[in-house]
This record gives sequence, structure tokens and C-alpha cells, in this order.
Amino acid sequence: MRADLLITSVQNPKLKDAIRLRERRDREETKLFLIEGYREISRALQSGIVFEALFFSPAHFLGSNESTLIEQAAKRGCKLYECAEQVFPKLSYRDRPDGLVAVAKQMQYALTDLEHVFTKTKTPLFIVAEAIEKPGNLGTILRSADAVKADGVIVCDRCTDIYNPNVVRASTGTLFTLPVIEAGGKETLTWLLNHQIAVVAATPSASIEFTEANLNGAIAIIVGTEQLGLSALWIKAATIQVRIPMLGVADSLNVATATTLLLYEARRQRRGVQ
Amino acid sequence: MRADLLITSVQNPKLKDAIRLRERRDREETKLFLIEGYREISRALQSGIVFEALFFSPAHFLGSNESTLIEQAAKRGCKLYECAEQVFPKLSYRDRPDGLVAVAKQMQYALTDLEHVFTKTKTPLFIVAEAIEKPGNLGTILRSADAVKADGVIVCDRCTDIYNPNVVRASTGTLFTLPVIEAGGKETLTWLLNHQIAVVAATPSASIEFTEANLNGAIAIIVGTEQLGLSALWIKAATIQVRIPMLGVADSLNVATATTLLLYEARRQRRGVQ
Repeated sequence: MRADLLITSVQNPKLKDAIRLRERRDREETKLFLIEGYREISRALQSGIVFEALFFSPAHFLGSNESTLIEQAAKRGCKLYECAEQVFPKLSYRDRPDGLVAVAKQMQYALTDLEHVFTKTKTPLFIVAEAIEKPGNLGTILRSADAVKADGVIVCDRCTDIYNPNVVRASTGTLFTLPVIEAGGKETLTWLLNHQIAVVAATPSASIEFTEANLNGAIAIIVGTEQLGLSALWIKAATIQVRIPMLGVADSLNVATATTLLLYEARRQRRGVQ
Repeated sequence: MRADLLITSVQNPKLKDAIRLRERRDREETKLFLIEGYREISRALQSGIVFEALFFSPAHFLGSNESTLIEQAAKRGCKLYECAEQVFPKLSYRDRPDGLVAVAKQMQYALTDLEHVFTKTKTPLFIVAEAIEKPGNLGTILRSADAVKADGVIVCDRCTDIYNPNVVRASTGTLFTLPVIEAGGKETLTWLLNHQIAVVAATPSASIEFTEANLNGAIAIIVGTEQLGLSALWIKAATIQVRIPMLGVADSLNVATATTLLLYEARRQRRGVQ
């Protein structure tokens, strides 16, 4: 592969522009974001994400298919920037870089982009994640949503933007393989109600356990912040309230873990139904 | 409460000794570790963990029960070090410190400490976590183990020591409320086999799904590293192999998430059995 540019200095302006995308403000201004790693970049390419640039450092490659991936990216009109070995770690945000970081355009989906789902299934399964703080938790929720083939994830009143590098990483690239929407809480609730999607919330005070509730219909599983749980808006809207048994001293699970339990229970109940 | 010492300088030797406990080497030398936060310290006190010192900063308190907690610690012979407002953040490892960091003695449990469980139940539920790398994952596994009231967690061939501050934090203090043992892999396997505890592993190649397997007996659920999964030792030893359905593009779940699914399924099957 032939690079458009060989970067040998950490002062290179293209490199500096890319590094700045670690900051949310810069992502919001440019509508760009970073994708690091072979697996994540492959999943993004397969999902049709538009790449602006691909920075690569052959000295850091861990596999043997990197050049194929780079060529695929180049065919889509992406610029190729080869980095010298000592320069690349400045851009990488991993402990063990694998020599690949892409700059890509944000997807910018809206709620209406989810509506094609209704032609495929009468019982879609959505996740609404409200104000999740930790990028790792949001990424893990996406990874689990992919695992159960959920029909979409709606991130409401975001604390963490979905383009945070640690969301991309914790999602292992599943951010690109399922529809992930950012929207306001009220707007989302109205949309769900208009489409007759039942709101499911896990709360400690619910009378039935999550494995006993009927999660077979069109549902959106709502999960809230690590610190405060769900807002009043969602608690009030939740027509299906379930309890995750807590048998020890702790009063709650990690939010991504709790979400995964609900998702797999919904999927278990649907087996053979759809 | 009356402090044994008022710390107004970041050069204070007691403070510097405590800060050094963030490093694994120092924890291993001193057999001490740090516990930060009201919830975590309360759970440690309730569980009989021995405190050497409690650093507190009234300016950072978020609640109103801190002084009761500090008095409880003092009654157990723990030294009290009051920190000036500008000094405390040097010791804290949280984004939002709540003014409490304890120095405690490590528990030093061994496999034999788990054996009292056999007098209580014929079908204990253990978790074996092999070489987990990320402290947050190990802490989340402990939190879920507490939630299902597992009978013990065995951390094998550790990458992350259980006294890492981020394990304590992600566990929300459940590190203290359930038996957590560190042991070698072979030693652990021998112990399990001697006590007729079946080894359960989740592998993509298993023919049955985890919700179809019989998880009602005496079992140890084995989970492996984020990168490489389980070692050959455990794969070979696993007489119950189960599959977690992966319906999307990703080939695995986050390790703490997968562990939680297996734990809750085991607990669901046991309801009314024990």
C-alpha cells in the first residue's frame, strides 16, 4: 500500500488534528471521531462507516491482514497516513496499540431511522440508555445489544457521547453494527408510545422478577445512570416493572451487567416466537 | 471525633505511605491496601476487615453519617488522620472523593477457608476467575457474585490483584462480603475435583445453551481472560460446557457480563431447590 503521507513528527498537523478528537468538544465541532484497532475498524468498514483518514504504523501490526484492511479503506476514498514507529503511540489510546487508528464521520442517525424495523418485526427489542456516565458501561451495553441482535439502542440525555474512544473500544466495534441513536428523553418516550412499544424498567421495588415478566412483546428496556438510576420520566412511563433479585449486601448490579440480564431474558423468551 | 493527627502537607510521611499503596508492589510488600468511599468502608467494617488507619477530610463529606463511621473505625483501634481540604485529593483515586480513605490489612484467605460452606449446602456455587486483566471487570464479577449470594470467588493466576483500588471500587465493597480467595490454577482444580464440584465453562463451541444446561448441582463457573479466554487446563476440566448465544457480529461478551448471565441462570434454576 502506498501512503498519501509519511508522518515522522509528533508536530504533524494531520496527526495533531486526529489527537484532538479524543476531546468531546472537538468531536462535536468536526462531527468526526476516532476508531482504533483492527477489529473495530473492520466492523466499521463492513457497516459502511465513512472514513476520512487511516493512520497506520506497520511496526505495531499484530496480524497479517492489516494491508488488506488498509487497501479496502483506500478504495473508499480514505486518506492513508503512515506513521513512524515512535510517532504512532501519541495517537493511540490503547495499552497495546495494533498500529491502526481511523478518523471517521459520525453516523448522525435519528429516531426515524429505526422505523424500518417495524416492517420486519411486530415485537422489536430496543434499549434506552439514559445518561450513562462511564464510556466502558455504554460500550458494554452496545456489545450485549449486538449479542442479542437488539433492534436499536437509543442514548438519551447523554453524559457520555457515543463517539468517545472508550465507548468504541468497549463496544468492540458493535457501535457500527446496530442502529445507535442519540435523542432527548421526552422525544424518545413520545416516539415509543406512538409506536406502542412498552417501557420496561428494572427497579428494586417491583413485585415480579425479571424472569417472570412477559418480555415477549414490543419493548424498550430502559436503563439509567450508575449513580442515580432512572429519572422520574422513565419510572412513571414504565408499564412493565421488574426486579433483579439481589441476594447479597449490594443493592444493585453494574448497569451494563443488569442490562445484559434483561436483554438475554427477553431473547430467551422470544426463542421460537419470532 | 478527635483525630490522632492533622495532615496539612502532601509531604506528610503517613500520607505518602498510603498513596504508595496504589502500587501493587507496595501492597504486596506491606500486605495492606486502600479502601475509598463511605459505602465501601462501611461494608469492610461490617465484614470485620482490620483497619490500620482512616484518612478523612470533612470538607469533602457528602452525607451526614461519616462521623459515626469514623467512630466505629476508631473503636476498633484504627488511627484517625484528618486531612486538610487541599491535601485529601492527593490520596483519593476517585473523580468525586467523599472524604474517606482507609488503609486496611489484606484478608489472606486460602481455599480451605471455603470448606465451611460444605456444612451448609451440598450444591455450592463458586466462581473461578482466571487471569482477569481489567480491575473493573474483576470488581464487577465480585459485585454480581454477591448479588446471587455465591459461596465464594477464587481468583487464579492473577493478573490483577484483588486489592487493586479499582477492584475495590467496581466491587462496591462486595470484595469484603463474600469469600474471595487467591490461588493457583492447578491447586484450585485439584481442590474442586476433591470436593466433587463440577467445572462449568462457557465456550462458543458448546452444543447446549447456558439456559438449557443443568446448573443445579455443586458447580464452579470458570471465566478467563478478556483477550484469550480460558486456558487449556480449564477447558479440559470443564465437564459442563455451555454456549451463550451470540446473534450479532461480535463473537463474545464482556467477561463480567458473561459471568453474570451464568450466575443468574444458576441462581434461577436453584430457586426453591435449596
